[in-house]
Amino acid sequence: MTKLVKNAVGRLVPTEINGEVAVPFMGVNKYKPEGNKHAPKLTTNADFPVDGNKQVASLKEALIKSGLKDGMTISTHHHFRNGDLLANMTFDIAKELGIKGLRWFPSASFPCHEHLIQYLEDGTISHIEGSMNGPLGRFASQGKMQKTAVLRSHGGRYQAVQDGEVKIDIAVIGAACADFFGNANGLYGQSASGLLGFALVDSQYADKVIVVTDNMKPFPCIPWQIQGNYVDYTVEIEKIGIPEKIISGTTKVTKSPDRLLLAEMTAKFCEATGIIKEGFSFQTGAGGTSLSVSNYFAQIMREKGIKARFARGGSNKYLVEMLNEGLIEYILDGQTFDLDGVTSMAENANHVWTSPFTSYNFHNKGNFAQLVDVVILGATEVDVNFNGNVATHSDGYMLHGIGGWQNCLFSKTVILPIPLFRDRIPVVLDEVTTICGPGELIDVIVTERGIAINPLRKDLIEKAKNSNLPLKTIHELKQEAEKICGKPQKPILGDKIIAAIKWVDGTVIDTVKNVL
Amino acid sequence: MTKLVKNAVGRLVPTEINGEVAVPFMGVNKYKPEGNKHAPKLTTNADFPVDGNKQVASLKEALIKSGLKDGMTISTHHHFRNGDLLANMTFDIAKELGIKGLRWFPSASFPCHEHLIQYLEDGTISHIEGSMNGPLGRFASQGKMQKTAVLRSHGGRYQAVQDGEVKIDIAVIGAACADFFGNANGLYGQSASGLLGFALVDSQYADKVIVVTDNMKPFPCIPWQIQGNYVDYTVEIEKIGIPEKIISGTTKVTKSPDRLLLAEMTAKFCEATGIIKEGFSFQTGAGGTSLSVSNYFAQIMREKGIKARFARGGSNKYLVEMLNEGLIEYILDGQTFDLDGVTSMAENANHVWTSPFTSYNFHNKGNFAQLVDVVILGATEVDVNFNGNVATHSDGYMLHGIGGWQNCLFSKTVILPIPLFRDRIPVVLDEVTTICGPGELIDVIVTERGIAINPLRKDLIEKAKNSNLPLKTIHELKQEAEKICGKPQKPILGDKIIAAIKWVDGTVIDTVKNVL
Repeated sequence: MTKLVKNAVGRLVPTEINGEVAVPFMGVNKYKPEGNKHAPKLTTNADFPVDGNKQVASLKEALIKSGLKDGMTISTHHHFRNGDLLANMTFDIAKELGIKGLRWFPSASFPCHEHLIQYLEDGTISHIEGSMNGPLGRFASQGKMQKTAVLRSHGGRYQAVQDGEVKIDIAVIGAACADFFGNANGLYGQSASGLLGFALVDSQYADKVIVVTDNMKPFPCIPWQIQGNYVDYTVEIEKIGIPEKIISGTTKVTKSPDRLLLAEMTAKFCEATGIIKEGFSFQTGAGGTSLSVSNYFAQIMREKGIKARFARGGSNKYLVEMLNEGLIEYILDGQTFDLDGVTSMAENANHVWTSPFTSYNFHNKGNFAQLVDVVILGATEVDVNFNGNVATHSDGYMLHGIGGWQNCLFSKTVILPIPLFRDRIPVVLDEVTTICGPGELIDVIVTERGIAINPLRKDLIEKAKNSNLPLKTIHELKQEAEKICGKPQKPILGDKIIAAIKWVDGTVIDTVKNVL
Repeated sequence: MTKLVKNAVGRLVPTEINGEVAVPFMGVNKYKPEGNKHAPKLTTNADFPVDGNKQVASLKEALIKSGLKDGMTISTHHHFRNGDLLANMTFDIAKELGIKGLRWFPSASFPCHEHLIQYLEDGTISHIEGSMNGPLGRFASQGKMQKTAVLRSHGGRYQAVQDGEVKIDIAVIGAACADFFGNANGLYGQSASGLLGFALVDSQYADKVIVVTDNMKPFPCIPWQIQGNYVDYTVEIEKIGIPEKIISGTTKVTKSPDRLLLAEMTAKFCEATGIIKEGFSFQTGAGGTSLSVSNYFAQIMREKGIKARFARGGSNKYLVEMLNEGLIEYILDGQTFDLDGVTSMAENANHVWTSPFTSYNFHNKGNFAQLVDVVILGATEVDVNFNGNVATHSDGYMLHGIGGWQNCLFSKTVILPIPLFRDRIPVVLDEVTTICGPGELIDVIVTERGIAINPLRKDLIEKAKNSNLPLKTIHELKQEAEKICGKPQKPILGDKIIAAIKWVDGTVIDTVKNVL
């Protein structure tokens, strides 16, 4: 039985996960890493084809040549989102070859990867380290995964590989187009997905790197979001993803009046507190509420003649329109959510690529997330200490990934517009089921029944006090929720740690237990 | 006394240089590196300014904060060429602080760095590892440098740092523009120089990285050729370079009838042997002869309706014109030689940045140099075994750097258009003074009195035999030269090894002795 210790947010966490040492969360900015970055093995051009042609006949051949064997760590990426065919293909081959005990290290998994449950059951895959959206998360929550899952943010994934915490044996990188040398991007072709930034760290640090495309182009494939110099083998297959599931034709703002209200209140809060000012910067996600916040921002900016220096975020139609209208000077893009985003990225030089390295990696010399004035995020739960949860639901099931959420908490102001309750279950609680982010980094909770500012942010409280915004304490919000919905039941959980939640510095901030 | 052993090209080389183990050249593709890449120390954002502002008041402050002390390795770069002010400034500060025994690791040095001779004399700088063009080379050749110089190609410099052969303590990177976070490029501002690729490896691997600019812009400075996430400190100074010396207003083709003849013969050779064909690729330098070769290529391509897939090379007016005319699809740019190049790079997306990593690093998984169909290079001397010299003159003085010359030898066909003699001294010899590149990689010598094809290239000999080109053996060329100029005198050299010439894999291919 692994030893459990209480970490800096009061959660009991193991000091060992899957046989490896784990450091309990020590508080924001407290853990100082020692030692050196992971040092990949030296290679020499003398061992690679003299004409630069690294193309092999099939993914199977590439995997065999890469030395696929039991117990290895295989990475894939979620650029194709719920339209991904590559991860399933990769493990079909592993199964066919009789390989066992693989650690799957995806940047995220989606419902399309439900196919892999059979391999978790038969031991082809021992466990998943990476965000699980949907069926795989439910499977893990039921205590069915052989080993413990490890969830990391996008930045935490970069950090873990960079620091040598996770050594990737084989990275399988899917790309909308590539050349035989391995230069690749996600911009052109039937499987266009935008950026390939989530695979950057894999290309840099994995032992073997395979680039797979359904659109092989003559050298040089430009731009090279993945540099062929990191690539061992290239493969062309017929179809790497399902286009209509890779990227939505267009993202849509919410039509829900409740959510529109949240978005409007959030924008008004930013206006009242002077956050929206000439040259400011913001990041909103691609959820319906977040998108609506951008829209309300645009209205305010238009009225006041304000221009933002940059927006960060998954690009989408609304951000692109703001860029084209001149309301934003630059979009600093981490991923791309719709076709407008992909097209704009290919055509507009003010649409700048970022990566988990530049934006999110915490074991760095600073990153972009901390430079953003205001970030609008979601949460499944928040507690009276402003701690936030994004991984588990109120019933205890782990159904979401962390994404860039933890990383974005380092921006100058963090606002969570959330409904006070969902399906008559309060969202503001005494204690969140799972702490994904410590309350000291979460500044404002916007609900339809009031806005709570973190007492640590005296400056924001001061600025907001003379506005006509419905300011309340977080305790008042919790009480209102409970008045309407009653005191919420705690989820009924077992004793088995099915997942560890890593903080951006690689320490363990919380665990997830199995659901009974 | 260091032990000398005979290497694979028959040169006596030391097994130790400046107290560190040196591996003698073992032959092309023979040396296989073991071990791992250099692993930089882990850093954490927690130790960097929370607002991302890393700007300090002066270069002196940045150097002190970086911990400048005796015996450190300090790197600078030649992006500002003969207009660089930064390297001199850096060592002026070191001198002022009483620091001794620094190893200067420039990507290249120019006549403007003659200022540093005083610091080599007084011990502020112990020695230079990096190409020396002009006065510093002469100083070293006179045996006056405390320790042994080490010369590397552009790719070899990347390799040496990547492999941990050279550990940079402080990298001082000058940039035409930057932001406080350290994002930087060489495109915009009074000191525009084009790319900053030579500083890439320094940013990735140095312990401390300082970005210095005379054009500080608000975040984000775009595009980031240097990523601020690697940068420790940023500094703004008044003037970082002398614009008219950084970059020529426009490069000019040679007007010398002799050189034009060499260029024309080279182009005709490529035409006759089928090297100039649809979709081919080429690299020419920025010397007068090389530029003329591009021009003759363009004529042939226009006549025959041929389009090149890409050209590599320092961009210049002539390449840019070919790009704009549609004769070249892409320019893969390593550096930029004139204003047309800088402007085109900033505006034309088919003008693609490369770096010593993508193009030249040999301890890689392949590089771009090997994908080029034909490369046109210069040489100070060639011998009957096709060995080439670019570092020393016939009088023994080391006056030139290696640049990308060694790296380009890996392209599919290497042609050296050179005069048969210079100032009545033969260029084709029994034995070159210094072997910078082994003859097996040099395919064709084009002189005004005949073209010699390396006997290893039976395919080229076959293709050229029915042309009306003046084909000769290399021995015939040598004899003709001697008939006109007489048997050349060997330079009068001492016993002191003043420099080691590294091959692209880090082994020692030759040494340079002091001149008596």
